[in-house]
Amino acid sequence: MGKKAVCLISGGLDSAVSAYIAKDMGYDIFVISFIYGQKHIKEIKSAKKIAKTLNVKKQVIFNIDKGCFGGSSIVDDSIKPEINHKIDDIGKDIPNTYVPARNTIFLSIALAFAEVIDADAIFIGATAADYSGYPDCKPIYFKAFQKMADLATKKSVKGKKVIIKTPVLKLNKSEIIKKGFKLNVPFEKTWSCYLGREKACGRCDSCLLRLKGFKKAGIKDPLKYEILPDWY
Amino acid sequence: MGKKAVCLISGGLDSAVSAYIAKDMGYDIFVISFIYGQKHIKEIKSAKKIAKTLNVKKQVIFNIDKGCFGGSSIVDDSIKPEINHKIDDIGKDIPNTYVPARNTIFLSIALAFAEVIDADAIFIGATAADYSGYPDCKPIYFKAFQKMADLATKKSVKGKKVIIKTPVLKLNKSEIIKKGFKLNVPFEKTWSCYLGREKACGRCDSCLLRLKGFKKAGIKDPLKYEILPDWY
Repeated sequence: MGKKAVCLISGGLDSAVSAYIAKDMGYDIFVISFIYGQKHIKEIKSAKKIAKTLNVKKQVIFNIDKGCFGGSSIVDDSIKPEINHKIDDIGKDIPNTYVPARNTIFLSIALAFAEVIDADAIFIGATAADYSGYPDCKPIYFKAFQKMADLATKKSVKGKKVIIKTPVLKLNKSEIIKKGFKLNVPFEKTWSCYLGREKACGRCDSCLLRLKGFKKAGIKDPLKYEILPDWY
Repeated sequence: MGKKAVCLISGGLDSAVSAYIAKDMGYDIFVISFIYGQKHIKEIKSAKKIAKTLNVKKQVIFNIDKGCFGGSSIVDDSIKPEINHKIDDIGKDIPNTYVPARNTIFLSIALAFAEVIDADAIFIGATAADYSGYPDCKPIYFKAFQKMADLATKKSVKGKKVIIKTPVLKLNKSEIIKKGFKLNVPFEKTWSCYLGREKACGRCDSCLLRLKGFKKAGIKDPLKYEILPDWY
């Protein structure tokens, strides 16, 4: 029996590259994707398409009541994601797209799933370099989560760890894109835009970071955009 | 403005006493209760009744997909909770009522809720003394969760902690019952039985521990039982 990994796939670029890294490392892939009231629910369609290309053993689409996530522009209709930031200002503050305790909740549920299928690792595509604003994307946070997870399960009592893997944590977007390019990640199936309209908006932080990454990597982004920044 | 606490109320005795302790400490009480496919869904009715007696600011009933919890007799119809254990054997092994990563998931969601309402503490009625079998009921686990939580949120970045309070963690059942008795916890509204039938079964681990606790405390359990153990 091969090694098993639970891969969190959001539909975005970072988690797709992380899952492809897991596959490349020889893990059998089990996918978990979350519906949590995000406006850009379109990313779940992307998550399904990406999982298909990975020939996964199982994909769980997990519904989370958005009730606990009030106050984020990602789930709250009364708050709009900030757009038209200058590209260099992104990451200086925690943006209103921050979702309370999101990675903690996602990882906790992934930990349960990992225990049920007896997985060896959880892969999450968090990245600290571009988005230093999110507290739950920092290396020190993942270390603390690992320590907690090592005490949290029946599996852990038996001395079997579930390792939290963050393979793109210290890479910037262009490095992630280059890595994904080498592994043949289907970028055209990924979705990054916060707005979830037909085309990517080209103005939200997520679009801007993505476009900057592709430009710096010297690779063409296959997605269609409503508008492209003048520097792209 | 007073201090705010998120209290996890399951409908059982330990969490009811914990919430009453929070109230007694002067916190404004916000309740979160979880539906996660448990067979003894009856406890949610109890959770609502208990919350009412606490005059809470808000009660959230949170639905969790039971998909991630396979393998536990609490949610899986094909597995029956073990019954008729000898009272002194309880806690020697991890019983099949163990639910993968349950407290981790519950606390993570409570942490998000705490951040949204800007709460100071989370109260959870975990108890290590009687149920040493569950890994996520041990003091060392809660310490690790606290350290992780201190790094996980926007609130924590601003230096404001959410303290995980486990006021009954080191008490045994009779001590919890005595404490609850002093605080006028409405024991008749609590529900402990794993089976969730009209009367408590009187044979599952949870019923046995409860009855032993009442007996030892010298207090009469107001619940009705299908059968009572000969030692009660």
